[in-house]
Amino acid sequence: MLSFECDYNKGAHRRILERLLETNEEALPGYGNDHYCESAKEKIRKACDCENAEIFFLAGGTQTNMLVISTMLKPYEGVVSATTGHVSVHEAGAIEHSGHKVLEIPSHTGKMDAGELEEYLKRYWADSSHEHMVFPGMVYISHPTEYGTLYTGAELEALSNVCRTYKIPLYLDGARLGYGLMSKTTDVTLPMIAKYCDVFYIGGTKVGALCGEAVIFTKQNMPVHFLTMVKQKGGLLAKGRLLGVQFDTLFTDDLYCQISRQAIEMAENLIELFREKGYRFFLDSPTNQQFIILENKEMEKLRRKVRFDIWEPYDETHTVVRFATSFATTVEDIENLQKVLEDI
Amino acid sequence: MLSFECDYNKGAHRRILERLLETNEEALPGYGNDHYCESAKEKIRKACDCENAEIFFLAGGTQTNMLVISTMLKPYEGVVSATTGHVSVHEAGAIEHSGHKVLEIPSHTGKMDAGELEEYLKRYWADSSHEHMVFPGMVYISHPTEYGTLYTGAELEALSNVCRTYKIPLYLDGARLGYGLMSKTTDVTLPMIAKYCDVFYIGGTKVGALCGEAVIFTKQNMPVHFLTMVKQKGGLLAKGRLLGVQFDTLFTDDLYCQISRQAIEMAENLIELFREKGYRFFLDSPTNQQFIILENKEMEKLRRKVRFDIWEPYDETHTVVRFATSFATTVEDIENLQKVLEDI
Amino acid sequence: MLSFECDYNKGAHRRILERLLETNEEALPGYGNDHYCESAKEKIRKACDCENAEIFFLAGGTQTNMLVISTMLKPYEGVVSATTGHVSVHEAGAIEHSGHKVLEIPSHTGKMDAGELEEYLKRYWADSSHEHMVFPGMVYISHPTEYGTLYTGAELEALSNVCRTYKIPLYLDGARLGYGLMSKTTDVTLPMIAKYCDVFYIGGTKVGALCGEAVIFTKQNMPVHFLTMVKQKGGLLAKGRLLGVQFDTLFTDDLYCQISRQAIEMAENLIELFREKGYRFFLDSPTNQQFIILENKEMEKLRRKVRFDIWEPYDETHTVVRFATSFATTVEDIENLQKVLEDI
Amino acid sequence: MLSFECDYNKGAHRRILERLLETNEEALPGYGNDHYCESAKEKIRKACDCENAEIFFLAGGTQTNMLVISTMLKPYEGVVSATTGHVSVHEAGAIEHSGHKVLEIPSHTGKMDAGELEEYLKRYWADSSHEHMVFPGMVYISHPTEYGTLYTGAELEALSNVCRTYKIPLYLDGARLGYGLMSKTTDVTLPMIAKYCDVFYIGGTKVGALCGEAVIFTKQNMPVHFLTMVKQKGGLLAKGRLLGVQFDTLFTDDLYCQISRQAIEMAENLIELFREKGYRFFLDSPTNQQFIILENKEMEKLRRKVRFDIWEPYDETHTVVRFATSFATTVEDIENLQKVLEDI
Repeated sequence: MLSFECDYNKGAHRRILERLLETNEEALPGYGNDHYCESAKEKIRKACDCENAEIFFLAGGTQTNMLVISTMLKPYEGVVSATTGHVSVHEAGAIEHSGHKVLEIPSHTGKMDAGELEEYLKRYWADSSHEHMVFPGMVYISHPTEYGTLYTGAELEALSNVCRTYKIPLYLDGARLGYGLMSKTTDVTLPMIAKYCDVFYIGGTKVGALCGEAVIFTKQNMPVHFLTMVKQKGGLLAKGRLLGVQFDTLFTDDLYCQISRQAIEMAENLIELFREKGYRFFLDSPTNQQFIILENKEMEKLRRKVRFDIWEPYDETHTVVRFATSFATTVEDIENLQKVLEDI
Repeated sequence: MLSFECDYNKGAHRRILERLLETNEEALPGYGNDHYCESAKEKIRKACDCENAEIFFLAGGTQTNMLVISTMLKPYEGVVSATTGHVSVHEAGAIEHSGHKVLEIPSHTGKMDAGELEEYLKRYWADSSHEHMVFPGMVYISHPTEYGTLYTGAELEALSNVCRTYKIPLYLDGARLGYGLMSKTTDVTLPMIAKYCDVFYIGGTKVGALCGEAVIFTKQNMPVHFLTMVKQKGGLLAKGRLLGVQFDTLFTDDLYCQISRQAIEMAENLIELFREKGYRFFLDSPTNQQFIILENKEMEKLRRKVRFDIWEPYDETHTVVRFATSFATTVEDIENLQKVLEDI
Repeated sequence: MLSFECDYNKGAHRRILERLLETNEEALPGYGNDHYCESAKEKIRKACDCENAEIFFLAGGTQTNMLVISTMLKPYEGVVSATTGHVSVHEAGAIEHSGHKVLEIPSHTGKMDAGELEEYLKRYWADSSHEHMVFPGMVYISHPTEYGTLYTGAELEALSNVCRTYKIPLYLDGARLGYGLMSKTTDVTLPMIAKYCDVFYIGGTKVGALCGEAVIFTKQNMPVHFLTMVKQKGGLLAKGRLLGVQFDTLFTDDLYCQISRQAIEMAENLIELFREKGYRFFLDSPTNQQFIILENKEMEKLRRKVRFDIWEPYDETHTVVRFATSFATTVEDIENLQKVLEDI
Repeated sequence: MLSFECDYNKGAHRRILERLLETNEEALPGYGNDHYCESAKEKIRKACDCENAEIFFLAGGTQTNMLVISTMLKPYEGVVSATTGHVSVHEAGAIEHSGHKVLEIPSHTGKMDAGELEEYLKRYWADSSHEHMVFPGMVYISHPTEYGTLYTGAELEALSNVCRTYKIPLYLDGARLGYGLMSKTTDVTLPMIAKYCDVFYIGGTKVGALCGEAVIFTKQNMPVHFLTMVKQKGGLLAKGRLLGVQFDTLFTDDLYCQISRQAIEMAENLIELFREKGYRFFLDSPTNQQFIILENKEMEKLRRKVRFDIWEPYDETHTVVRFATSFATTVEDIENLQKVLEDI
């Protein structure tokens, strides 16, 4: 059975496992106070060109979103997100469970429009009963989005400007950040993200790690006693080295970018393959997630040979499905997919 | 200055204050265990034709919504509401603060459509990743809605049927219930509400009381240890008699309906007055809240003589405003408004 | 049946009900923005000799404790209380439900010792793993305590000094503050409390009001957007006038002190009566709550004629019971109790 | 520098890392739905002699305690713990942050007494105002305790009986369970724990894993939609295989017991060494944590050569310190410690 259902179905990049073995016998301080965490942070600061960045390693994406959002918001504030935002739809209500509303504004293939954001904020503050409403206290975007799409540098700058006008932080969810940075069409770089965003995370789980996300507070704005709040919410690993060694490896010799680039190349092969066979794309995604419209019977046939994700109904007889490549996708995987498509 | 800005700007119905004075010297048990609470409950059960109803008195509307919703939902559930629902927009995020998401579906001048609700629930349960999403665990409607509109009996029944199919409770926010029940156009009665809804509340604060709402659990479904949870959330009054005496008075000699009818009559006078003067209505409301479209300069002029609520921008040069009558609105108030409108 | 079971079994002081009637027809802004609230605040500021005090009216004691503590604490902080503190024992876990630990230190007939508090704080900060523990972020005391006892001015000053050394606020729960201020033995005044405490509340519910507590932030330290957080937790009354008129009345012509003094006088009569009859006191209380040790059979007999509160077992054959006087206790009540005690 | 400061300072058991490498290329379902998780669960069920056990893998101890306690308790319930319980002292208030009080009863070198527990529960239910208090809804014990001590089988049975009488679950925190099971003095077995406890966890982080704890619900009492609640609180790993492979390895060929036994043997060597040198023990611990009383100057000297944990002040001139062995402690480590002690 071929596997294109997601980008977290394989283990870690082999180099990471090797490093875990190599460092295994060292006695190290717990809770992220080890020198691998320090080294990883330093490398990330350099990659972001942000020497004062405060960095914290966490285990997973929902945990990271919940922790960043709930510790940066005041109790009376909510987070503004596109309706399709992962925090609004696919995190089992983790943000609300932490006490905060997700304030939805329209999504444009996953993206938020700076003009619409500004309009929303303006209207809120002009409302005479706004004290009885949830204050917009942060803006959440994902990059790549849940639909694999990307902001341009100019779009990020525009969102950042709106946030600064209204004095609220801009937070970028980078669960698949590598695949965004290595996309052929993007002009967005890591330093640019560090400049425009007040906080963001570099995803490890979906980009070569066993688990782990690196949260970067770019404006010396890490919440006071963040570690204690992480502990309080159950997110603090005793063996912080597990995250430190992984990120140190990912940011050594450009490994993070290199494996992301590989996933993008495989995605391009995949796009070409589907194009050749005459499949329709639901939207244009320049990253590792590709959304195809399949006729339902054909979908059922295909499912017997290859795993993919069923996204949403398209119409009565068609369904949108997602094929994802990852750091672990090989040329052979694509070739096997080609054979499957030819046989159907 | 004339006052039409809301339905809670005056004190209580005089009879209520008199009863508070008459009963003042009695030594009574605290926390709602007094005989006035008991008597009020019994009268409400009769008015609802629901002899097994479990009833609890609370101090205010947001408190009631938050308590009912958060104690009836499981931690992984959210409440479905129209986008305009008070719980979603105007309660400072009280529901989310209690840990639950408000799941929005479209609003039709304040109302939820049973077909759209069914579609929403169907789609949720068909989604293969629904375990990573917030479970729809309750449906919230308001009656009258935030726009003064009303469900018909058939519409309530349809919503109730959808809820029963999906085994989730239907909750009706009756902050202004009296004004709905006494509307000339409605076919909805209190027993009908008790039949179709699993829980609802009869609003006192906006219908003649100093404060207070009566929550009615109609299906022997009051959450176990509800009193303790009310206490835990700060909603339990030591002198529960304050609520008991008020509701006992409101449900003696049909006072609740009588004063609601008076407000409806005043609303009809108000509608006639605005119609005569050629004002445009934003929508047709058969209850005590009336939404008028005013030209902005005219609005400014009017504001010098009469208080009303600025609802939302209509277009560049017009604004939607709300005029509300209440149990305390008099014929004289309407006559004075007439003079103001004539002078302008 | 005689009633000494608590200090909230009667309605309100008659003057309060009269004022509610007198002001009933006035159209007033909602949510505490009326002129009665303003006037009450100004009178309280004067009584406290604290002209910059920020004041907010709430409906009940548990609500007040939960709101003050949860909005003043950071998420990683808890509140230090004596083991007998109302917040720790009798509020159904309202503080923990708001996310904060109650950090217990010993109780000395309801009081906290400044030296023990200092020792506790010192130890916490000296612990190398304190970041994995709950930060002590506030100190909670009650005055009178749950045992009717009182701090001296010197004791309050000492607690205040410890709090200032450790830069955490001192919060005084004054549910029965009037009875403390009017005790014959006290040297503590309202201005003294305003000076030593960072926040405290003047209880209305147990001292003549239908409901209501006045929270006083003495150091311009009211949490930002406190109103929104009160709304969010369900504590905001639409008709804020209900609280404003009551506190305005209580602080006009010294009514609050006058009715408190009356309760103290009745308590003294009660003490004398029990002393004369040879009853044992569990502790010396200079306020309106009196704790008597009753032999169990005698207790059962007495219960048939008079209501009192069963406090806690004393030993196998005795029980501690509480008799409370209040603003509504009369000389006649005491005389009737005397007859009951003589008949037994 | 020698390392005896804790049992989580090294990486994982080598066999675990090898298995992660061996299984790395397999495409597996996410979120714990892989066959390694299934296999690990089956092996644990057998080891517990509890074929209906429901098992869930989580990442760390505080996360596990918070998730188990907060999902099993009703909102109005708290968890009973000894004053020294990890949940009460060293988890940054995670339980309270989830909304629940930790109800403390006395600790006897870390252990709870069944008689005292019964007395506590009896008193709570006899209190006429118990509805205004936190309901005791669960009992939490740790085994080994925070002081390295162990319950006997009879003690566990007694606690279990009290819990069953009061119909509340008994929860055992087994962060260091292996070290308890392999202690030479114990009569407690894994099946015995599964029989007496309603839920417990087998600690991985401190017993050979990189991270991970296995929660075992022994009475078909896993909370409904537990996975969704884990997700909601940020505890769900996308690559659940990381936990599945580790526990599958730990429960293959008795590895978990074997490496625990090794730590116990090293602890015995350590005890012997300290005894020989005339050191005083703070208490008798039959497991991997040893508490020694050091004279303060001697402690400072020792700290230059060996890392240990400073536990608490003993008196003015002495301190209690903790030395811990683990699965990774070697005979050579003990020999090196001997040299250090001889040199001082």
